[in-house]
Amino acid sequence: MPETVSSTEQLAELAQQLRVDAVRACAEAGSGHATSSLSAADLMAVLLAKHLRYDFDSPDNPANDELIFSKGHASPLLYAMYTAAGAISADELLTFRSDGSRLEGHPTPRLPWVDVATGSLGQGLPLGVGFALATTRLETTGSRVWVLCGDSELAEGSVWEAFEHAGSSGLDNLTAIVDVNRLGQRGATRHGWDVEAYSRRIRAFGWKVIEVDGHDLEQVDRAFATAAGTTGMPTAIVARTRKGRGVAAVENQEGAHGKPVPDTEEAVRDLGGPRSIRVRVAQPHPHRGGSPRRNAAKLPGYEVGSEAATRTAFGEALTALGHARSDVVALDGEVSDSTRSGYFAEEHPERFVQCYIAEQQLVAAAVGLQARGWVPYLATFAAFLTRAHDFLRMAAVSGANLRVVGSHAGVSIGKDGPSQMGLEDLAMFRAVAGSTVLYPCDANQAARLTAAMAELDGISYLRTTRGNTPVVYGPEESFPVGGSRVLRSTAEDQVTLVAAGVTVPEALRAADRLAEAGIAARVIDLYSVKPVDTATLRTAAAETGRLLTVEDHWPQGGLGDAVLEAFASQASPPRFSRLAVRSMPASATPEQQLRHAGIDAEAIVAAARELVPA
Amino acid sequence: MPETVSSTEQLAELAQQLRVDAVRACAEAGSGHATSSLSAADLMAVLLAKHLRYDFDSPDNPANDELIFSKGHASPLLYAMYTAAGAISADELLTFRSDGSRLEGHPTPRLPWVDVATGSLGQGLPLGVGFALATTRLETTGSRVWVLCGDSELAEGSVWEAFEHAGSSGLDNLTAIVDVNRLGQRGATRHGWDVEAYSRRIRAFGWKVIEVDGHDLEQVDRAFATAAGTTGMPTAIVARTRKGRGVAAVENQEGAHGKPVPDTEEAVRDLGGPRSIRVRVAQPHPHRGGSPRRNAAKLPGYEVGSEAATRTAFGEALTALGHARSDVVALDGEVSDSTRSGYFAEEHPERFVQCYIAEQQLVAAAVGLQARGWVPYLATFAAFLTRAHDFLRMAAVSGANLRVVGSHAGVSIGKDGPSQMGLEDLAMFRAVAGSTVLYPCDANQAARLTAAMAELDGISYLRTTRGNTPVVYGPEESFPVGGSRVLRSTAEDQVTLVAAGVTVPEALRAADRLAEAGIAARVIDLYSVKPVDTATLRTAAAETGRLLTVEDHWPQGGLGDAVLEAFASQASPPRFSRLAVRSMPASATPEQQLRHAGIDAEAIVAAARELVPA
Repeated sequence: MPETVSSTEQLAELAQQLRVDAVRACAEAGSGHATSSLSAADLMAVLLAKHLRYDFDSPDNPANDELIFSKGHASPLLYAMYTAAGAISADELLTFRSDGSRLEGHPTPRLPWVDVATGSLGQGLPLGVGFALATTRLETTGSRVWVLCGDSELAEGSVWEAFEHAGSSGLDNLTAIVDVNRLGQRGATRHGWDVEAYSRRIRAFGWKVIEVDGHDLEQVDRAFATAAGTTGMPTAIVARTRKGRGVAAVENQEGAHGKPVPDTEEAVRDLGGPRSIRVRVAQPHPHRGGSPRRNAAKLPGYEVGSEAATRTAFGEALTALGHARSDVVALDGEVSDSTRSGYFAEEHPERFVQCYIAEQQLVAAAVGLQARGWVPYLATFAAFLTRAHDFLRMAAVSGANLRVVGSHAGVSIGKDGPSQMGLEDLAMFRAVAGSTVLYPCDANQAARLTAAMAELDGISYLRTTRGNTPVVYGPEESFPVGGSRVLRSTAEDQVTLVAAGVTVPEALRAADRLAEAGIAARVIDLYSVKPVDTATLRTAAAETGRLLTVEDHWPQGGLGDAVLEAFASQASPPRFSRLAVRSMPASATPEQQLRHAGIDAEAIVAAARELVPA
Repeated sequence: MPETVSSTEQLAELAQQLRVDAVRACAEAGSGHATSSLSAADLMAVLLAKHLRYDFDSPDNPANDELIFSKGHASPLLYAMYTAAGAISADELLTFRSDGSRLEGHPTPRLPWVDVATGSLGQGLPLGVGFALATTRLETTGSRVWVLCGDSELAEGSVWEAFEHAGSSGLDNLTAIVDVNRLGQRGATRHGWDVEAYSRRIRAFGWKVIEVDGHDLEQVDRAFATAAGTTGMPTAIVARTRKGRGVAAVENQEGAHGKPVPDTEEAVRDLGGPRSIRVRVAQPHPHRGGSPRRNAAKLPGYEVGSEAATRTAFGEALTALGHARSDVVALDGEVSDSTRSGYFAEEHPERFVQCYIAEQQLVAAAVGLQARGWVPYLATFAAFLTRAHDFLRMAAVSGANLRVVGSHAGVSIGKDGPSQMGLEDLAMFRAVAGSTVLYPCDANQAARLTAAMAELDGISYLRTTRGNTPVVYGPEESFPVGGSRVLRSTAEDQVTLVAAGVTVPEALRAADRLAEAGIAARVIDLYSVKPVDTATLRTAAAETGRLLTVEDHWPQGGLGDAVLEAFASQASPPRFSRLAVRSMPASATPEQQLRHAGIDAEAIVAAARELVPA
């Protein structure tokens, strides 16, 4: 039966139980971060027993508090908390890190009480900002967000993006708990036990900061109460602790990171033996949530034969989606005038989140929002999404449903030069587990694909173009994900030109010129780069014998590689050739850029002629 | 003739000249960031005329100061400074942003006075830390590092990694000049003109902070003098400025970012007309630099038939390189015990830079060091290198020679789970312009490739493995970049297994089993993933007809895609199939991981049998 754990003595017993359980889980696994768990056990015992509001039987209750272990390697402590809360059994605890167990080396959403994966340090606090934005700005659940951070990870710039965002936005339901145990993986941290070094920095970013002895249960209890009662600003509890606390052989010792304690029995003795406290965790405040409004969007249409930028179509479609659905949110990295997400901001300011030039926080905020059921679209320059690569990678581990839009892709942006050109974004997003990669060539297609992303699971990416492109599709046409469009086709085709985005008009022009020269060329608009339309590509290969891909991207990992995927295990893959950006661009007009890169109509004609026997 | 510009009146004239020239360059280009240049013109006029020490005739003089425009979009101002210094002509200035011009939209090292490309915001200060580390810790040149930052970019976490590193290391020859012009790209910045918001934060990170009116030339002059005279800590000059300063039509106006001023003639009139001051820039202090010692390294050797981890061989080889060469430097992201760069730290502590868990600063520091002629190797977990993707991308624009090592690659790390597994690193590094990607399978190969990287231009990447692998090559064998090794070969081979790193032993085991079943399989160790050994792959394809690639990486952008590159434009590409990691791994032992991912010997046997007709 669950019991109330409230007195200092009871809390101390609970903390020791968490320690014993963490130590035993690591011992059973033969690996795991025992000492990193021991330092934070007192902090987490007090949180679990007295401050966290969580219904472990209903992990989907939106009124639950959110607990994020940013120091994900302390997972044995988290799992010991779940055990103490009765959510998992003592037996399951001992499956830690074994094949098939939900209790992974670092927490993942395989466990219903984990909403976001951690383990790459410096991500928990930015993710917590996302949750706190949802629960303060978009919802009225009143739930709190608690993030346990390590001291080492405060070296990550992403953490300071989060301190800045939360402090400046006054996210007062967010609490960071910094476990200053002095020791990192390979020795002392930069600031050691200079707790004030952390406090000074965090305070400068607009947070309330409370310094505590992280092993003084009463101090810790008071700090949590103060945090919960503080309005107008988030709170950081900076706790001085001892790594390995309570186990003499490893306490405050170097060389004891990331492994079980050397002698489990002795450690358990040090800790006063096993306990089996089943703690009563406070229930969340009752909450009556409404269902979001989800109507079909009235998407913008563009006239065939006119010109428009796909980024503009994205912005207009997103705005329309915002009218049709109450759950769509847009996030910006201070370039909304360029990406066109600013259109959404004008009409739906209450669902627009400005993250300024902090792409890691931008992605993390979106991950937090989607975990609470929101449908976030985030947009910045394609090039600058590389800044958030680790967050995108981890979002896939979290199983997040995320819509990412990268504008100003490729050399076709023109004069700004290579720093602003996304030339590796297709490679990056294709190599995100379970991702979808879309690259529209015209405005109607861009609008349709923008809308389609709302329904997609996983991480979907839309690549948009800065300049205007010809509208080639009618506004009522549909573009299924995983499909493609055959734009030119005859029974006599001798080569297939596979293009996407800005190279589609070039391929069409090239096909015209090739036709004049007596070479019939098929043209495929491969707007869905992942998944790729295997059937159409195979048919084209079988019928034309030769494939030429052309992309505004480095040759690695983009359209060319995506096309070849279609021929894995096929008896005779077609002859192929690829055009891509092969040397570092400089400043020039868009037309000059395409010419210099060898991806314009002229280059396509030349390459096609080389493929086709005279 | 160059003239001394010293009085306030002279400085004011120079500042106006810089403004006029920046405005005219943008007007001629029809694009460019005029208003962002105008705000910082007073700051830069004072710096150029009175504080910068730079011999524009000898940009390679190591005693020159380093000037970095972190707000790279203010390039018109930088080019106007070069014009005032006589480094470029007034005519060349007007080639800004045109095809073939050295004066790109954002500065790149096409210009001899630019050592690092900027334009992705938030990079200049971390790069500056690299220069300052070189000139204070490794050299005695006495030169100073001046970094002009925008206010918007202070939202980037990378900037705070730099503030932390420089402040904690007391890099007193580094000065950050923050141009607080209040307006970002699409409106007001987060803090607007709240200069104290920036000062408070920067001061908390251990910097001396001086607030100035960025248009008060005397205040600015005093601030630079104070910065130059401050010891023990870096200095930030936080300058309140007005965007578009001096041009009435755009001064302090929204909507004027990133474009020429509307009326050039009127603007030039506002600014008092053109000038042609040729400013005398102070020469650097004379410096007698020595040449680095560069002997051949006595690399470690490992016995064939034994087992060792490639990460260990990297660490030992790097340490040996450190003995042989005085220019080799190692940088760590607080995981040197895991990557094994800690071996180097023990023997060469004076050339070891601890960057803590701040991967962006880690890469940026290395970029700064290499720009000063050092030969940096940086290492962290392969997975965490994604954190620095934008810095790696920009390092390629800078033409940097960088050696990057990613340990703990792939599912083979075992129980720690997906957050720690580098599964996209090959895709990321292949798509870096001009990169080299190496993936050794045994310790001797790893040691040789580590040494080879010292001689490589561009960004080279070495992927290492956590666990031991069998030593299959002798310690004296050589492994040219761009090569491969054929480990099994007969005239009857029916299939070629292409592996690298941890999948090589699996492929060898698979070949043995296939031989037992009567199928002769060739095995290629493709240790050079980029450039790829086209000749050997084509021969194998021609002779065996079928290729099976197997990699501990997502299917996108890695070994499989690299192999197919060899067949571009070939008349009949071979039948191919690929084994790669296709679903999200969890915790399990290394052996279980390889099995679950379908990349172990058993999976290779099964896939090979499918390719080869019975």
